[in-house]
Amino acid sequence: MTVAVEERVAARRGPGRPRDEDLDRQILQATLQLIDAGEAVTVGRVVERSGVSRAALYRRWPSLTGLVAAALDVGREVPPAIAVSADLREVIRQSLVGGNDSVAPDFPEERFRQRIRLAMADRQLQRAYWHSHVARRRVSLERALQEGIDRGILRPDLDPAVCFDLLAGVVYYQLVVRGDSLSDQAVQVRCEAAFDVAWRGMLAG
Amino acid sequence: MTVAVEERVAARRGPGRPRDEDLDRQILQATLQLIDAGEAVTVGRVVERSGVSRAALYRRWPSLTGLVAAALDVGREVPPAIAVSADLREVIRQSLVGGNDSVAPDFPEERFRQRIRLAMADRQLQRAYWHSHVARRRVSLERALQEGIDRGILRPDLDPAVCFDLLAGVVYYQLVVRGDSLSDQAVQVRCEAAFDVAWRGMLAG
Repeated sequence: MTVAVEERVAARRGPGRPRDEDLDRQILQATLQLIDAGEAVTVGRVVERSGVSRAALYRRWPSLTGLVAAALDVGREVPPAIAVSADLREVIRQSLVGGNDSVAPDFPEERFRQRIRLAMADRQLQRAYWHSHVARRRVSLERALQEGIDRGILRPDLDPAVCFDLLAGVVYYQLVVRGDSLSDQAVQVRCEAAFDVAWRGMLAG
Repeated sequence: MTVAVEERVAARRGPGRPRDEDLDRQILQATLQLIDAGEAVTVGRVVERSGVSRAALYRRWPSLTGLVAAALDVGREVPPAIAVSADLREVIRQSLVGGNDSVAPDFPEERFRQRIRLAMADRQLQRAYWHSHVARRRVSLERALQEGIDRGILRPDLDPAVCFDLLAGVVYYQLVVRGDSLSDQAVQVRCEAAFDVAWRGMLAG
């Protein structure tokens, strides 16, 4: 039955059975459309919009929470490892407070707002999104900070995770509390100034 | 007509015309009940729950946005001026990362989450809340930071508003991104460690 449905989907899309990534993409896009439209995400609605079978959906995402978390992360990538030879300060500054891209590369601000809205309405989703997406994206930068500590650039008593929270927090404050936009030049200047303060507090010696 | 309705309300509450603060409180409490229940705030619902007339409601809050912003702020207070003689570091640390009270004194976490949720769904509300409530609450602390600059404790090139964003941002990051609770000891330790980094970056000399 499941295979039959998948094959019907495949038939609509052309010859051959759709690859797994195609189904994933269809499901995620349908979920995102519901989120962007402000509609509640239900299995029925995702099945209807995506044309993917219920069984295929459940096989990929056993929980709606995981599906919504994955959909909210579409377009975001886990940053690659940071080269040891790089200018550490500049790489971290650019990555955390370097403009529109800092919180969300290829991630429209409206979707960021939806993400926070959904997370605040559902702590389980918030924690799922944290573990499966945000925490993973932090790894390369935390490693770079640790590298900075090991090389004596940054203070030996620093906790990279704490530094990340401090540097990222100021950007979230602009978006979540002030309601400002990162494309606003004054906001950019404010984030850079905050970065300077934090970085000074992180430097060794 | 309006007066008559108000008098009926007053009659229910005992002899005499209700004082303005009583009506304010009834309206705000009705609005908060709707918010806490996750219901949309409409004039009709607030009128129905509060027993206050539509005209009296409009007289006090010409816009629903202003009313919701005010309701979300119930239980929060503008902090008093900080004494110049105080231990500046300790006062600011306590005020910004000093535990449950730092973001919201007498303000349950669920309501904090509702506030962020509503703000992310409605930028107009977010900006109204920022201007009428958050910005006002920042004044005494920003003045204390300026005082610290003037007295040579903090660097002369600091912008107090930037420092506030940096210090408060780390707390918001815990609540909004990590989904952690400030009553969690590990979260408290993390916020204190971030405060130490930022404060070091703020110190003169």
